[in-house]
Amino acid sequence: MSDIVRTFPKDLIDLDQFSPEQLTHILDTAENFKEVSEREIKKVPTLRGKLVVIFFHENSTRTRLSFEVAAKRLSADTVALSASGSSLSKGESLLDTARNIEAMHPDALVIRHGASGTPGFLGRRLSFPVLNAGDGAHAHPTQALLDMLTLREVKGRLDGLRIAIIGDIAHSRVARSNMIGLSKMGARVAVAGPPSMMAVELAETYGVEVYNRPEPAIEGADGVMMLRIQLERQTGALFPGNREYALVYGLSRERLKLAKEDAVILHPGPVNQGVELSPELYEDRRSVILPQVTNGVAVRMALLYLLIERPGQAEAA
Amino acid sequence: MSDIVRTFPKDLIDLDQFSPEQLTHILDTAENFKEVSEREIKKVPTLRGKLVVIFFHENSTRTRLSFEVAAKRLSADTVALSASGSSLSKGESLLDTARNIEAMHPDALVIRHGASGTPGFLGRRLSFPVLNAGDGAHAHPTQALLDMLTLREVKGRLDGLRIAIIGDIAHSRVARSNMIGLSKMGARVAVAGPPSMMAVELAETYGVEVYNRPEPAIEGADGVMMLRIQLERQTGALFPGNREYALVYGLSRERLKLAKEDAVILHPGPVNQGVELSPELYEDRRSVILPQVTNGVAVRMALLYLLIERPGQAEAA
Amino acid sequence: MSDIVRTFPKDLIDLDQFSPEQLTHILDTAENFKEVSEREIKKVPTLRGKLVVIFFHENSTRTRLSFEVAAKRLSADTVALSASGSSLSKGESLLDTARNIEAMHPDALVIRHGASGTPGFLGRRLSFPVLNAGDGAHAHPTQALLDMLTLREVKGRLDGLRIAIIGDIAHSRVARSNMIGLSKMGARVAVAGPPSMMAVELAETYGVEVYNRPEPAIEGADGVMMLRIQLERQTGALFPGNREYALVYGLSRERLKLAKEDAVILHPGPVNQGVELSPELYEDRRSVILPQVTNGVAVRMALLYLLIERPGQAEAA
Repeated sequence: MSDIVRTFPKDLIDLDQFSPEQLTHILDTAENFKEVSEREIKKVPTLRGKLVVIFFHENSTRTRLSFEVAAKRLSADTVALSASGSSLSKGESLLDTARNIEAMHPDALVIRHGASGTPGFLGRRLSFPVLNAGDGAHAHPTQALLDMLTLREVKGRLDGLRIAIIGDIAHSRVARSNMIGLSKMGARVAVAGPPSMMAVELAETYGVEVYNRPEPAIEGADGVMMLRIQLERQTGALFPGNREYALVYGLSRERLKLAKEDAVILHPGPVNQGVELSPELYEDRRSVILPQVTNGVAVRMALLYLLIERPGQAEAA
Repeated sequence: MSDIVRTFPKDLIDLDQFSPEQLTHILDTAENFKEVSEREIKKVPTLRGKLVVIFFHENSTRTRLSFEVAAKRLSADTVALSASGSSLSKGESLLDTARNIEAMHPDALVIRHGASGTPGFLGRRLSFPVLNAGDGAHAHPTQALLDMLTLREVKGRLDGLRIAIIGDIAHSRVARSNMIGLSKMGARVAVAGPPSMMAVELAETYGVEVYNRPEPAIEGADGVMMLRIQLERQTGALFPGNREYALVYGLSRERLKLAKEDAVILHPGPVNQGVELSPELYEDRRSVILPQVTNGVAVRMALLYLLIERPGQAEAA
Repeated sequence: MSDIVRTFPKDLIDLDQFSPEQLTHILDTAENFKEVSEREIKKVPTLRGKLVVIFFHENSTRTRLSFEVAAKRLSADTVALSASGSSLSKGESLLDTARNIEAMHPDALVIRHGASGTPGFLGRRLSFPVLNAGDGAHAHPTQALLDMLTLREVKGRLDGLRIAIIGDIAHSRVARSNMIGLSKMGARVAVAGPPSMMAVELAETYGVEVYNRPEPAIEGADGVMMLRIQLERQTGALFPGNREYALVYGLSRERLKLAKEDAVILHPGPVNQGVELSPELYEDRRSVILPQVTNGVAVRMALLYLLIERPGQAEAA
């Protein structure tokens, strides 16, 4: 235990910062906190008097709400900051804004930003914990952790699982964080997507299987994670169209038969029903998409708690 | 009592769901909560640890603020969601967004939406209470309840009162909810407005008197409710202009003489002074427009309490 | 003491309302509250059950956040209102909106508005305290108080200090409130800026030294306050350009040598680095720009406390 807490990072930037033991510790903590959201009174005094600044520079419903709910269930106060209506529109640099926030003695900053690397850049310069809520195409560690918690819950373990991730692998922060986290925990990850959405070096960098068609990735999988086709981000023509994508890469009942019989379907949401996932599978009993959302609150409670309170660290030092 | 609570609806969609006894129970509960807002410490622990999600898909000041204040005075936590900045702008359906919220274990959803029927649609599909904060031209039940609470407070009863509602009756959710609620409580409702803003079937559907000129509606009234002319919604030409409207339908000191001497003036706000109401009447001692706002907080506290806690229901079952 | 509290104003509009003893009382109270933000649990129950309405009609990060954090650290509830999304966009007057808010029994209104005089106008008409968070070119009293707290902290006193304020003096609410507050406390203020940004009557009105070049103002100063050049507000051509401004009016290491050796640099933020302040000075040990932000929370805690609770006033009456 003492090693887990002594070397526990100051910030949550991506999962490569954590040892498998530390990841397990986060998941265990989340599992414990999950019960709070099921109580009559859904609140514990753990972070009473702490201030969490929530700064979303990109649109989001579930991640922002999830962090806010997590903070409030721990009795922390939250203040929100958005790009519009902030000094950023007066030309102040993000670092200056963050240093101004720092001067108000917050206890954590949760940030989503379109530019990869922003949370890490800020974390290295600020004295208090920074939590990455998604940065560009780089990382989305709380999403990967909630995926891992959901898989561990259903399958009883992560070690030895085979997980397929299908979609725009090259540009997905969800895919990246999951490839890192799942591999660390001993799962075998197979990724598949159109050639324009794949990068040849993935196999080497992350030790994952790389395919251009979904079938070999899904074959024998314990879990199939479908990524959102970012329709609103498609500027060029990375793929011919939604119908064609659904036909070749979308998850259908037929295609799912290749996976293990008890395989589960994951999706980070929001789902484009009929594109990456058929509507019937969205409602299928094997879908764990809504349990993922529930686990998201628990994972974020765990991380706010671990990074703000650093339990056991004084003793371990 | 046990019947009131046993059959108390899960959601607040419109007042037709409630029996007169249940409406009285809501008003009595609101009256009790009203005192909290007058205390030195304006807060009771009633909903501590409960989460109220407030989702306004249309602009609003007083209704949104009123619900937020009501929730906070009951010690509930609130998280806000707006149309912009949410996943809805990524093309997710409202139901999917709501089911994602549901997975975070909220205790209530307060929703305002431009499309009639949205709160009812969601309420039937979600496991937790949905409170309609105004949907299209359909219903605005908390507004009608605060109107009823204000009238009952001043007049001592609702049964036997004569209430005039003047304005765009056909397109007003405030008018609809009041016609239903006031009629249920034994009041006589008379509505008046330009022909383009009336519907012939109102008399039959709601059992109200229907006029095309305000005078016969106001005659002998205990209360005159002036509706807001939705200047910002006028796309076609439902009426010739503000001056003409004020002249024929606006409430003036002269026109008010037709009502009972102790008649009160109601308005859901924001008031277009000089259009539906003369500025002098806005400030008149007979105006209960600001007491309506005060009662709005009390009514919303009552509904959040009754729908989330369902007091007495365990015993009644 | 009893005089200080007996005549303590209902609202905070500008510093001319306060006697030097009252200003000292505010600064002393702020100093006491400062410690709360440094605690493990950064929260006191002082304003539990009180409601603070925060209404920013202009963009702001630090001032809005600072007030929100201040309110939460005192355990008050906050509700926020912005210009968009409010009834103001339906044509309601600001006073009507405010009177509607009043009917919900709030304990304070914090308002920033582009039109000078708005907070005073509202304060005279509302029964509860109004706090000016910046109105047009008129006043920004909490900013001046945090500047004064910072100077008093570093220098041990305000009386007898020489403070230079450089920039667009004529249009700066920060400059105005500081000229009033610092002069009241016995400091000598010298202002400098381009002729287009100065007004000849400043000397007489505020009893300050007025220069068109920064050097004589900075000479012998204990503190140099650089104002933000409001790049986003420059519609006409008040000055030729940023480079030219920096050259003639910007604070450089060289120009700072004219001040006392232990002079401090203040700036209300956000800083245009390289325009009014050289980047090296922003990071200089003499810069107290971030301590100013820290003190801003303390000053706002003090004012919310003093205006809402009015401690000692019952006894003094």
